[in-house]
Amino acid sequence: MNASAMSGCPYFQRKHLLASKKQVKEDDVDAAQSGVNKASKGGIIYGDYLQLDKIVSSQLLQSELKGNKIHDEHLFIVTHQAYELWFKQILWELDSVREIFISGHVRDERNMLKVNTRIHRIVMIFRLLVDQFAVLETMTALDFFDFREYLAPASGFQSLQFRLLENKIGVPDNQRVPYNRRHYRDNFRGQEIELLLQSEKEPTLLQLVEKWLERTPGLEEDSFNFWGKLESNIFEGLKREKDKIEQTPDSEMKEELMADFIKQKELFMCLFDEKRHDHLLSKGERRLSYKALQGALMIYFYREEPRFQVPFQLLTSLMDIDTLMTKWRYNHVCMVHRMIGSKAGTGGSSGYQYLRSTVSDRYKVFVDLFNLATFLVPRDWVPKLNPNEHTFLYTAECCDSSYCSSEDSD
Amino acid sequence: MNASAMSGCPYFQRKHLLASKKQVKEDDVDAAQSGVNKASKGGIIYGDYLQLDKIVSSQLLQSELKGNKIHDEHLFIVTHQAYELWFKQILWELDSVREIFISGHVRDERNMLKVNTRIHRIVMIFRLLVDQFAVLETMTALDFFDFREYLAPASGFQSLQFRLLENKIGVPDNQRVPYNRRHYRDNFRGQEIELLLQSEKEPTLLQLVEKWLERTPGLEEDSFNFWGKLESNIFEGLKREKDKIEQTPDSEMKEELMADFIKQKELFMCLFDEKRHDHLLSKGERRLSYKALQGALMIYFYREEPRFQVPFQLLTSLMDIDTLMTKWRYNHVCMVHRMIGSKAGTGGSSGYQYLRSTVSDRYKVFVDLFNLATFLVPRDWVPKLNPNEHTFLYTAECCDSSYCSSEDSD
Amino acid sequence: MNASAMSGCPYFQRKHLLASKKQVKEDDVDAAQSGVNKASKGGIIYGDYLQLDKIVSSQLLQSELKGNKIHDEHLFIVTHQAYELWFKQILWELDSVREIFISGHVRDERNMLKVNTRIHRIVMIFRLLVDQFAVLETMTALDFFDFREYLAPASGFQSLQFRLLENKIGVPDNQRVPYNRRHYRDNFRGQEIELLLQSEKEPTLLQLVEKWLERTPGLEEDSFNFWGKLESNIFEGLKREKDKIEQTPDSEMKEELMADFIKQKELFMCLFDEKRHDHLLSKGERRLSYKALQGALMIYFYREEPRFQVPFQLLTSLMDIDTLMTKWRYNHVCMVHRMIGSKAGTGGSSGYQYLRSTVSDRYKVFVDLFNLATFLVPRDWVPKLNPNEHTFLYTAECCDSSYCSSEDSD
Amino acid sequence: MNASAMSGCPYFQRKHLLASKKQVKEDDVDAAQSGVNKASKGGIIYGDYLQLDKIVSSQLLQSELKGNKIHDEHLFIVTHQAYELWFKQILWELDSVREIFISGHVRDERNMLKVNTRIHRIVMIFRLLVDQFAVLETMTALDFFDFREYLAPASGFQSLQFRLLENKIGVPDNQRVPYNRRHYRDNFRGQEIELLLQSEKEPTLLQLVEKWLERTPGLEEDSFNFWGKLESNIFEGLKREKDKIEQTPDSEMKEELMADFIKQKELFMCLFDEKRHDHLLSKGERRLSYKALQGALMIYFYREEPRFQVPFQLLTSLMDIDTLMTKWRYNHVCMVHRMIGSKAGTGGSSGYQYLRSTVSDRYKVFVDLFNLATFLVPRDWVPKLNPNEHTFLYTAECCDSSYCSSEDSD
Repeated sequence: MNASAMSGCPYFQRKHLLASKKQVKEDDVDAAQSGVNKASKGGIIYGDYLQLDKIVSSQLLQSELKGNKIHDEHLFIVTHQAYELWFKQILWELDSVREIFISGHVRDERNMLKVNTRIHRIVMIFRLLVDQFAVLETMTALDFFDFREYLAPASGFQSLQFRLLENKIGVPDNQRVPYNRRHYRDNFRGQEIELLLQSEKEPTLLQLVEKWLERTPGLEEDSFNFWGKLESNIFEGLKREKDKIEQTPDSEMKEELMADFIKQKELFMCLFDEKRHDHLLSKGERRLSYKALQGALMIYFYREEPRFQVPFQLLTSLMDIDTLMTKWRYNHVCMVHRMIGSKAGTGGSSGYQYLRSTVSDRYKVFVDLFNLATFLVPRDWVPKLNPNEHTFLYTAECCDSSYCSSEDSD
Repeated sequence: MNASAMSGCPYFQRKHLLASKKQVKEDDVDAAQSGVNKASKGGIIYGDYLQLDKIVSSQLLQSELKGNKIHDEHLFIVTHQAYELWFKQILWELDSVREIFISGHVRDERNMLKVNTRIHRIVMIFRLLVDQFAVLETMTALDFFDFREYLAPASGFQSLQFRLLENKIGVPDNQRVPYNRRHYRDNFRGQEIELLLQSEKEPTLLQLVEKWLERTPGLEEDSFNFWGKLESNIFEGLKREKDKIEQTPDSEMKEELMADFIKQKELFMCLFDEKRHDHLLSKGERRLSYKALQGALMIYFYREEPRFQVPFQLLTSLMDIDTLMTKWRYNHVCMVHRMIGSKAGTGGSSGYQYLRSTVSDRYKVFVDLFNLATFLVPRDWVPKLNPNEHTFLYTAECCDSSYCSSEDSD
Repeated sequence: MNASAMSGCPYFQRKHLLASKKQVKEDDVDAAQSGVNKASKGGIIYGDYLQLDKIVSSQLLQSELKGNKIHDEHLFIVTHQAYELWFKQILWELDSVREIFISGHVRDERNMLKVNTRIHRIVMIFRLLVDQFAVLETMTALDFFDFREYLAPASGFQSLQFRLLENKIGVPDNQRVPYNRRHYRDNFRGQEIELLLQSEKEPTLLQLVEKWLERTPGLEEDSFNFWGKLESNIFEGLKREKDKIEQTPDSEMKEELMADFIKQKELFMCLFDEKRHDHLLSKGERRLSYKALQGALMIYFYREEPRFQVPFQLLTSLMDIDTLMTKWRYNHVCMVHRMIGSKAGTGGSSGYQYLRSTVSDRYKVFVDLFNLATFLVPRDWVPKLNPNEHTFLYTAECCDSSYCSSEDSD
Repeated sequence: MNASAMSGCPYFQRKHLLASKKQVKEDDVDAAQSGVNKASKGGIIYGDYLQLDKIVSSQLLQSELKGNKIHDEHLFIVTHQAYELWFKQILWELDSVREIFISGHVRDERNMLKVNTRIHRIVMIFRLLVDQFAVLETMTALDFFDFREYLAPASGFQSLQFRLLENKIGVPDNQRVPYNRRHYRDNFRGQEIELLLQSEKEPTLLQLVEKWLERTPGLEEDSFNFWGKLESNIFEGLKREKDKIEQTPDSEMKEELMADFIKQKELFMCLFDEKRHDHLLSKGERRLSYKALQGALMIYFYREEPRFQVPFQLLTSLMDIDTLMTKWRYNHVCMVHRMIGSKAGTGGSSGYQYLRSTVSDRYKVFVDLFNLATFLVPRDWVPKLNPNEHTFLYTAECCDSSYCSSEDSD
């Protein structure tokens, strides 16, 4: 127990004062020796706890097996294992968040801290994974060439965890770029296929967030009726803008302003056209239901309301995940281009070309949250909350029993 | 095989031209489909290659075992496993570099690229490991408190690989901060102690670099005699400076200049005092032999000579490793402070206080390379090379057979 | 306006469909051309907006002025200018947050999103600044030596903005390491001294956070009385632990458990000893008032309550700032060690030694928040909220007028 | 002068020993006070040196000018100014490297350290600039919307320095994506256009590297004749492979092997087809001359030769720059998508769509260096150097006078 910890305590303080009349140095070697070894007294130790016997014995070089040990293959293995370790962690967080949503515990707003923290943790992990390419890039194309032949047909496309991760976040099957004209699941076998099928059937993070957004308080038509009020505010606002333009004298600038105005009006007409939305949804160009989109926009506009601060952070983190996943894909593409130029991948794919095609908005699960930025309006067009609505928005759907049981199931 | 790869080839080019008269899009979904699946044809696949069955099945939560599953323990385990994976990679690189030095293959300068690349890779890994704390820091003190009791007496002090790494780089036993007044090796058992003892006996990276520096061409007293020439140049230079100061009229500034001059002269008198050096060496305040220090300074001053460019990069990377290891230690301290305040560590140490005491120049293996910056002199004090010495410096100790055998042993 | 933006719109959709029957490529060069240049129509342009004439004309090399242009001095200047630009941004965020607290607008919880976002932004900037050293470290000691003499007596200690930043966050005058035995303010002149004095007089972030923590709802003795309840829960808990230990048969282990128990009990006796706290406060070993400490611990324990989620994030970000500032200081130390070994600084300081002494808990403004981790207790020792207290904790001190006026003053 | 610096010196050592009989603490506050203030004695001080009056007074918010001060505009300005500061530094390094090539000083291999160091510095700066987006991303779309209208028509497309940087590295005019169907230069005025035209006329880094690669020792047909030897080795190697395949019994696998073989042979036939190369060059699909491509491949294969180690690092760093520039572009795209969804840019461009189209191999200046990975061959197909050639490869084109004059011009 060190000096500063004890600094609140009369008994220990005295000894501390005797030991040094002046400031206690932070790198004091003596003070650092006050502990007692506990490892010798039984119980689990570090290496066993982390199962390091398995972790650090799993680097078997194919090149060595085939009698031509290539130094850099070790880096190749370790890097991929580190990726898979972190994928496991992401799946762990993702499953726990999905469980909070599925079980309905998200209705107790106390659980939003957990949801937010865990989604944010996924963001931080992806940030690390994007940086991690810098380590693998210390291997040159020529070093890779020396052992690449031994790897075939192993390939990153066979990473089960990465596919599960995509599925559970919500990359839809019909938006995937086929892999050598075949379904992505054809790269897997036996139990792996089971797990993939199951992950496609379970509610995705996207779907769960969608349901949650649809419940955004304030959307109810018979109450605050956010959407109705917003629509009328926007078209009134546009009307005022049009009037202002029409009152300016004729000029090239007036024409341009009017052209811009027409574009803007058409844009908002589309926003409020539910049929159009459903059509786009069916084509995969939108991903959230009409109602969920309304909820998201409502959270955007009222993000400063205490009730919406944490939900707003959540939407931001979801976009972070999307962005980082595409950055990960793009960094992957860059590395592959450097490693194999334009050769085919070890698994037989078109390599660079295949990967390049996945850096696409098709793989952006929460693309609608980005596109909402298209529909921002001036603050004074946003429907005002009245004091009652404030109160309403503050109320939590709190229920202690479910909260506690969420703890248990955690 | 994609379009741009084939762009040099008449046969494929044609098909490509038919497919699209305009520019081929880089995210072209069709072009991305030209591969052929190879995984179904036998051979090793991704998961087996990486032994993922072991890697992703090694996360056993002690809290769950004890009937109180705590979500964040999974992060704690995975983070530490990722550290250990990377430690293994660092050891892999470190051992290979030490082997090149030990076997004498370093005398063939072609092997310097390997040495440099691998040392640089260690730098890049440490950079990642420093950043990796940001992920663990998403766990708060309160989350950690929930499962911390289940970990005892496991503790990071029991990381065998980290101690091996320190030993192999060259942290000397007598500079280590004791751990609870006991020798660091007391935290280990059986075969681990063997490995640690062996790593203490083998030549460290520091010692190997020292021997290599001692052979720096140009140090020979009967030839270029760098050290002798440097000494006489410096004291002539100082003499000129003193004369200049003495010629200025008396003033406060003159006194200050003279005081500075005396300090500087004493500094250089020490540099050329071999006995003093050996005394400091015996106390652990210097780490490189007198001769090696000369070699390092010679590389500093002639770093632009082709012969010395890569050696200079190596010295820079060695300082990078030292710096990053202390940054790693410091980030570790910061994290521990946040997690446990000033409590004792799980292994029984004084925790924060112990770790704080290891962020010290005592643990900087290549501290002499930093301190050499104290002894820089103006460019025109550095002994000039004559054309013959240029030639000399260019000559490599090349011998094809040893080079080839280094490949074999690699 | 691009295709996906327009995807909600019948009018534009048609044209889009004509243009391409298949998927629209994301790097489509034609679709990218649909914009209209506006720069030619008047208004401000990029370079004027950013005042680039000033920004990119401010790199005057002293070495060039003195007839010996040294290439790397440019990097030295630009790096420091980039630091100062970001310091200005940090001050901008810091002042705005302090203003929200000072004006009382923080009582409207809607403003907490702003506070949190801006404090988090400071965190992100510091993270960048820590990384930024990697760029300056591409300059070696030898390159620096070539122009270092021209800089004297300029020195980073003369950075006004950095001192303002320390003062405004709350580094107390009496905790500063003196600089060459003189007061830090002696390095400054005229109006700079005024600004520093003023920043010392104004409420610091620390003081403002302290006042805010003191108002934590639930601390009132005549209501929920968190502190009283916690004290009695803890000592009851300790009593139960003691009983359990006493019932075990005599053994070495029993003695150890009892010794640990006594330490723990003393620790908590200190926590609840207000006089002791005030004594430590007077010595600078604690920084928050007794009441504020209670508020912070309350937020820690009830962090999942909707009312406390955002405050909890704020406390976490404040620790992040402290941690990153010490990492910044430490990275600075490492760089200086490499650049000048153990020479004196250009401003005349002891250089490395001075900087090393500032990497200390003395400079950790929110050190109490870290040390609170020492006082965590099992979840079932934390006083239970009853439904009414939930309701209480949910209520915001909302007042629309102040909220609006905060907007104005922003 | 601190204790450890003096540790080599008898005079100072004594005082030091008196001061402390035990280990000297690194954060010793007293030892840190041994310096003498120099700032009061005249000479330049920090703020003047860095021209901070200009740097930190250049943040003028358009929103404030227009009576509606928006807090986040300050971040927007500072971030862009930081980008421009670093662009200036990159240009500084780039110009100095180009000058070394243009002046012919690169023929003295001692200058390769400078070239390499400076190119590597550009890499490190770009790495920082990629990370810097994380700061700007703390601003949400809604915050940006509040002041975005005030910016028009200012736009990042008007960044003169970025265009200069692209031109000087070697982005060719005819590969640029047009901007609103107009030439990129149309966004600029007066002297800016002059500077751009001049940068298009001057030798680009690509062209200079090309000339340097063409001089790679060993390419001479009447001497080592690398290209001729390589061609015959490759086709002999292919012949042996074909024979091996033909000797296997007929099977599906044999057919596949033969198909692969044919592809591979065609690939290499293209590599050695100079006319094809020139055709691709004329279309912009290759960027390096046929001879330069040979030099690059030679450096790849013999990278371990002392003569080629530093050149090999240079080629690697050039690919790093390309990769980081495309990552910068891609991160920019991601940020813009988040900020404005699919709206038009402030300068009138198609915004997201325009930027997306620039993340393309068209903008990869050193794309040929990546594609060379397509043409790697087994080590034993690479022509062997004989001892004479080793010697040849070691010889530097050293000439002291040019080296010295390069110093002068630096």
